Amino acid sequence: MKEFFQVLDIEAVLALRERFNRLDGEKVRLDEALGRVLCEDVASPCDLPGFDRATMDGFAVCAASTYGASESNPAYLDVVGAVVMGQAPDFKVGPGQAARIATGGMMPEGADSVVMVEHTDTLDANTIEVHRSVAPGQHRVTRDEDVGRGRLVFASGRVLKSQDIGLLAAIGHDMVSVFRRPRVGLIPTGDEVVPLGAEPGPGQIRDVNTHTLGALVREAGGQPVAYDIVADRFEALFDTFQRALAENDMVLVSGGSSVGMRDLTLDALEALEQSSMLFHGVSIRPGKPTMLASCGAKAFWGLPGHVTSAMVVFIVLVRPFLDYIGGRGATRMPDRVRARLSRNLASVQGRVDFVRVRITEKEGHPWAEPVLGQSGLLHTMVEADGLVAIDMNSEGLDQGSWVDVMLI
Amino acid sequence: MKEFFQVLDIEAVLALRERFNRLDGEKVRLDEALGRVLCEDVASPCDLPGFDRATMDGFAVCAASTYGASESNPAYLDVVGAVVMGQAPDFKVGPGQAARIATGGMMPEGADSVVMVEHTDTLDANTIEVHRSVAPGQHRVTRDEDVGRGRLVFASGRVLKSQDIGLLAAIGHDMVSVFRRPRVGLIPTGDEVVPLGAEPGPGQIRDVNTHTLGALVREAGGQPVAYDIVADRFEALFDTFQRALAENDMVLVSGGSSVGMRDLTLDALEALEQSSMLFHGVSIRPGKPTMLASCGAKAFWGLPGHVTSAMVVFIVLVRPFLDYIGGRGATRMPDRVRARLSRNLASVQGRVDFVRVRITEKEGHPWAEPVLGQSGLLHTMVEADGLVAIDMNSEGLDQGSWVDVMLI
Repeated sequence: MKEFFQVLDIEAVLALRERFNRLDGEKVRLDEALGRVLCEDVASPCDLPGFDRATMDGFAVCAASTYGASESNPAYLDVVGAVVMGQAPDFKVGPGQAARIATGGMMPEGADSVVMVEHTDTLDANTIEVHRSVAPGQHRVTRDEDVGRGRLVFASGRVLKSQDIGLLAAIGHDMVSVFRRPRVGLIPTGDEVVPLGAEPGPGQIRDVNTHTLGALVREAGGQPVAYDIVADRFEALFDTFQRALAENDMVLVSGGSSVGMRDLTLDALEALEQSSMLFHGVSIRPGKPTMLASCGAKAFWGLPGHVTSAMVVFIVLVRPFLDYIGGRGATRMPDRVRARLSRNLASVQGRVDFVRVRITEKEGHPWAEPVLGQSGLLHTMVEADGLVAIDMNSEGLDQGSWVDVMLI
Repeated sequence: MKEFFQVLDIEAVLALRERFNRLDGEKVRLDEALGRVLCEDVASPCDLPGFDRATMDGFAVCAASTYGASESNPAYLDVVGAVVMGQAPDFKVGPGQAARIATGGMMPEGADSVVMVEHTDTLDANTIEVHRSVAPGQHRVTRDEDVGRGRLVFASGRVLKSQDIGLLAAIGHDMVSVFRRPRVGLIPTGDEVVPLGAEPGPGQIRDVNTHTLGALVREAGGQPVAYDIVADRFEALFDTFQRALAENDMVLVSGGSSVGMRDLTLDALEALEQSSMLFHGVSIRPGKPTMLASCGAKAFWGLPGHVTSAMVVFIVLVRPFLDYIGGRGATRMPDRVRARLSRNLASVQGRVDFVRVRITEKEGHPWAEPVLGQSGLLHTMVEADGLVAIDMNSEGLDQGSWVDVMLI
């Protein structure tokens, strides 16, 4: 190792997020906005539903006309019209009067409530019997009862859900201003790595990291941009680093688990213009040999070569940075579930251990069952449902204790 | 209402899924397979990593050469070579010998373990001192330790996660066979409904359902196909129904909250070729006036007009059908979290009530706090994080009780 290895803890790493800028915004069509992050506050330009509206099929009336009505002593009302759906009624309803109305119909002037059709009998074309009284406001919503004009409906940073898309449609937003999706350059390195399409020779492995990290970036709302595998040589690394920085909002270089390779990556990183190493080394396991440089306003990560370690680092550290620059206001929900640990887990103080677990259901609640196997093996990630963190100051967790499982 | 209203409960509705066929498969590029559903079992065509591999930087040795080695009594080994990354070593390591190797390097023949570089000292170009013994197999993985050739790695129905994409890359799958994404036709109806781009006149509202349901379909892995708003007339409904059925795997018609409109929808549905009404009415609230017809092998749903009801019906009933035809093997995880109810909730026996709640954190655990407001109002959905179901046979839930919150 070339230099003093500055090891930060997770909190110190996450505090570095604020050194980076939020991305700018773009307009997208409402139907493409699901899961995107609003980059401006949205106030409603109109009342919703926009008119007093019936919520039942029946008769629009003045509630007072029905007071005291019962099966044995019905109220008799004159039918003065029928509301046509999608049109403003051209008549009024006075005391002793009623108008046919369907669910969603516009309340005629003078009427303040709806008698359900089930509580009426038709005597003739112009007269109904009402068997039950209604209160003012019953079975109708007022013009601004859902959303009032000018009300702030969404704050910047909101991750749009299906119902949000619905409300934006209701207030007439066919285009939405959202944060641009972060472009994330992915650079695989290592003389032993061959592309997915090639048949690995002896001592070679396929490029797993680019595909795994690409999926994680996509899942986090970013756009992965894959670069060709770079050989373990300074010039090749430096050239690709420079190009990826110019073309993306963040760069992840992975591979180079060996100390020599890590040194090369570090050299190339330090040679970049405006680059400044923020740390190399994080007190987590797996994932310790992670490094981060700021290159101008962009984050450039050196991730461990083992894909399982790279995944943990992405989830625990890189994703919060992506969330930050991508404007995400809230934590992902739910990114964790509670479960009871199926057996004791030992740990070492001074670092946070992330243990792979599968979640099973037993005795009426979820259990977190550690997945066995060497931490470098990909199948242990595939069999896991989540990660359990064992705190820095803890020597382990006891069987049966409740833990938070970060879902993966 | 035209006919006897056959009201089914949720379980009876869900049991109808099996009347419909699973969709066929298609091949997609691995980088587009995240979140898609595998439609065939995948066995590994090769061992992973494919060769015995070092997991630390150091020296490949026969473990026996190090037995008894300590700081005060080191073992002396002859360095017979250095493993080049990505290449098969062209030398062997015998007793008393060692070869330089970096993490990820291919173990030379004869070596069964790796001594970490930290536990050695270099005496000269050809000799090292080893200060600690290693066990056979230490700091290396064997050629099939991650995945053995022929092993079933994924079963059909698996929803692909990031780590799965990684494992598929590792075994050389650049294309993946997945279930086709269900195409879902969305038909908005109602004389009062205008498209998003239009300014609603008095008594009119914008088409909220198509956009909301479209987002829900997308979130569920389907492809929404939106149709123009259909007026409340039999011929117009029938024509659009027929076209949407021909062009999609499932159809959702929404709107028509009034009894008259429901009857029209029912007439048009029954007039379709090979149509058979499976039910109209489900014992849930909101969402009771839901209907389902099978039209040949396709499901045709009539959803309530209120978008909030339509959302609940989609989540509780329609999505499980989509999951079924789309081949999804497992339940979505996590689609629910546990929380304590912040106040009493009353309910009526004989139907399942779905109550909107927001989730807050208090006293160290999550609370489900009912969102107030009329059930037809969209803002109540926007403010909610999930739904709590109050069982058919229950008269309500007590404050403080633990409930499952279905996330929305």
